[in-house]
Amino acid sequence: FPSRLPEVGTTVFTVMSALAAKHQAINLGQGFPDFPCDRELIAEVNAAMLADHNQYPPMAGVAELRHSVAQKISALYGHDYDPETEITITAGGTQGIMTAILSCVSPGDEVVIIEPAYDSYRPSIDLAGGKTIAVSLLAKRDDQSRVYSYAIPWEDLANAIGPKTRLLIINTPHNPTGIVWQASDLLRLAQLVKNTNTLILSDEVYEHMVYDGHVHQSIASHPALAARSFLISSFGKTYHVTGWKVGYVAAPAAMMREFRKVHQFNVFTVNTPMQYGLAKYLKNENHYLSLPSFYQSKRDYFQTGLRATGFKLLPAPATYFQCVNYTDLDIPQSKLSEAEFCTWLTSEIGVAAIPVSAFYAAPVESGVIRFCFAKKEQTLSNALTRLQSL
Amino acid sequence: FPSRLPEVGTTVFTVMSALAAKHQAINLGQGFPDFPCDRELIAEVNAAMLADHNQYPPMAGVAELRHSVAQKISALYGHDYDPETEITITAGGTQGIMTAILSCVSPGDEVVIIEPAYDSYRPSIDLAGGKTIAVSLLAKRDDQSRVYSYAIPWEDLANAIGPKTRLLIINTPHNPTGIVWQASDLLRLAQLVKNTNTLILSDEVYEHMVYDGHVHQSIASHPALAARSFLISSFGKTYHVTGWKVGYVAAPAAMMREFRKVHQFNVFTVNTPMQYGLAKYLKNENHYLSLPSFYQSKRDYFQTGLRATGFKLLPAPATYFQCVNYTDLDIPQSKLSEAEFCTWLTSEIGVAAIPVSAFYAAPVESGVIRFCFAKKEQTLSNALTRLQSL
Ligand SMILES: CSCCC(=O)C(=O)O
Ligand SMILES: CSCCC(=O)C(=O)O
Repeated sequence: FPSRLPEVGTTVFTVMSALAAKHQAINLGQGFPDFPCDRELIAEVNAAMLADHNQYPPMAGVAELRHSVAQKISALYGHDYDPETEITITAGGTQGIMTAILSCVSPGDEVVIIEPAYDSYRPSIDLAGGKTIAVSLLAKRDDQSRVYSYAIPWEDLANAIGPKTRLLIINTPHNPTGIVWQASDLLRLAQLVKNTNTLILSDEVYEHMVYDGHVHQSIASHPALAARSFLISSFGKTYHVTGWKVGYVAAPAAMMREFRKVHQFNVFTVNTPMQYGLAKYLKNENHYLSLPSFYQSKRDYFQTGLRATGFKLLPAPATYFQCVNYTDLDIPQSKLSEAEFCTWLTSEIGVAAIPVSAFYAAPVESGVIRFCFAKKEQTLSNALTRLQSL
Repeated sequence: FPSRLPEVGTTVFTVMSALAAKHQAINLGQGFPDFPCDRELIAEVNAAMLADHNQYPPMAGVAELRHSVAQKISALYGHDYDPETEITITAGGTQGIMTAILSCVSPGDEVVIIEPAYDSYRPSIDLAGGKTIAVSLLAKRDDQSRVYSYAIPWEDLANAIGPKTRLLIINTPHNPTGIVWQASDLLRLAQLVKNTNTLILSDEVYEHMVYDGHVHQSIASHPALAARSFLISSFGKTYHVTGWKVGYVAAPAAMMREFRKVHQFNVFTVNTPMQYGLAKYLKNENHYLSLPSFYQSKRDYFQTGLRATGFKLLPAPATYFQCVNYTDLDIPQSKLSEAEFCTWLTSEIGVAAIPVSAFYAAPVESGVIRFCFAKKEQTLSNALTRLQSL
């Protein structure tokens, strides 16, 4: 039978994790921590199971968790979402993205995305019958440092947004480049969409991982944007439990009403004991406020080790990813495509990474690959030893 | 912005559970148990969390669980699915249904469903751009007993399936009527679809709840049908943990390939520690083989109590639902529509039920409502006392 997604294969994160397992490589590809989550969080989930919180929670999520989320957003970003009508707990950020897209994109609608982009956006738009209009971050290579940096392509964005644009997807802090949108960027975005029918999906799953004094600017912090946006986040990223698959979506009531229509027939609702455990755990703000220093020291450790290699380090101001350029390495493999280089690095050197080309639909080769540094120091140290042998 | 699902409101199960909570009614509406799940299962999940199984599992699901599922299907229904390529763990049966539909139904395709039907089928088809062709179970009321019984509408099915039919959705054991398809039904179905391009989605989430010596006939037990079918089941129903949201889909590799393309961009994957816990728990076949006698005694207890009321009992050979006809009750409310009757029963009598009319798109009033008997004996006893007051 005809494929609904003929151009789609297995997601690069699964492919690279499988390749890493096959070669017993150190997996710095797919983004997930290799260190334990907090025992206190596990104890809360276990307590919820033993308290018989094992049946369907409310469709939109456990009330206590929705309230905790609303409080967090209010405290951090100054916007008050109504937990009854404006917040829904999802089976991870990805399910929030798919559901938001299915709920607002009709066949023929255009959706603007900014590449490099997380690989779920485009197929989700395809399934909704929408048309993806991709613009690219402006990639500039500094002649001297020979390092790429990325900037928001304002002119291309302005040209891409038109009367058929139903949705614009942004992602800040940005996977894989770590770009953090500034308050001035949100202002500029607000100008851009002001007299259009464009809704916004703001993927902020790395909201609590920003370094060097950068400050995450949530779409929720800008009222005119919040009024037309789906805000998406993930407990899996924040609390080192990517496998629990719990996240949330916040949006104005009119948008959330449509979101929930789809949500209730997609997953209906989300794991009850995990929701109760997270509701308790979220009340202690230190659990997320401590993340920047926690991850910044990992990043610094990893960067120091990488500086002893021939890789060129791109800026990594946020997320738990470090991008590097390999084209100046003095080895024949520096001429390989990003995908080939990552395959070679995994199978021969024993370190898995993600080709940034996988975040583009069209072939784009800038010689940049992504490492995940959400790992134990020992793991990073072992990987660095291998990378330093190049 | 225009709604993708303009005719959809909040699912009836959520509406009735909210109404039950508001009136502190005994909730025999939405289908979920009110008794504890097995502590052994909770202990397995807790052990998995403490063993640090908290990060992304493989996209298709934890290998051990997929293997256990394949073994169960092989043992019970004699069909060998390859756990590597033919089984995927889902965030509950509903997510399996939505994902299967999105993966095979293209805009313009027709999908045949049999009403009364679970309320997620139709909106899932809508989102895929498909066209729902609904046929109805043949409802016959016996003149003497004044009880409805239902039969598969073979003639209507034969007329409904045509060159545009991409998918036929069946549900056995059937929610809400409890109909169990026989081996002869599957043979007849195989004849019907033989020279067509029709795929089948077989919703078998109540596979382990059949009574009075009835035997569940899985689509997997018929090779010609299995070769074109998505088989869907749910651990939540089987193990009294509806809130855990874990189920599975089995299908031939070519269909599963397309299913996984959508799955990976919908939820990506499913809660890791629950999967590990269930993998262990599933190895003891007694945990599902004991279900029929466990639930049959609940059903018998509930039926005995209902016989002392003016409700007319429909046959309940399977699932954990008991349908009754209220139109012979000697009260003015017996003239109400099913939805109105359920609202009145919840708010005034203190027992929530589901109107069977909610399982039809067009207004159909047969005066039949559905009770869930997956409850503690004390809960059933309290509900019966209230119902006996009518
Ligand atoms: C859903 S698997 C991918 C995890 C992730 O966010 C990433 O590696 O970019
Ligand atoms: C997903 S809520 C509905 C539960 C159920 O299967 C039913 O009550 O029919």
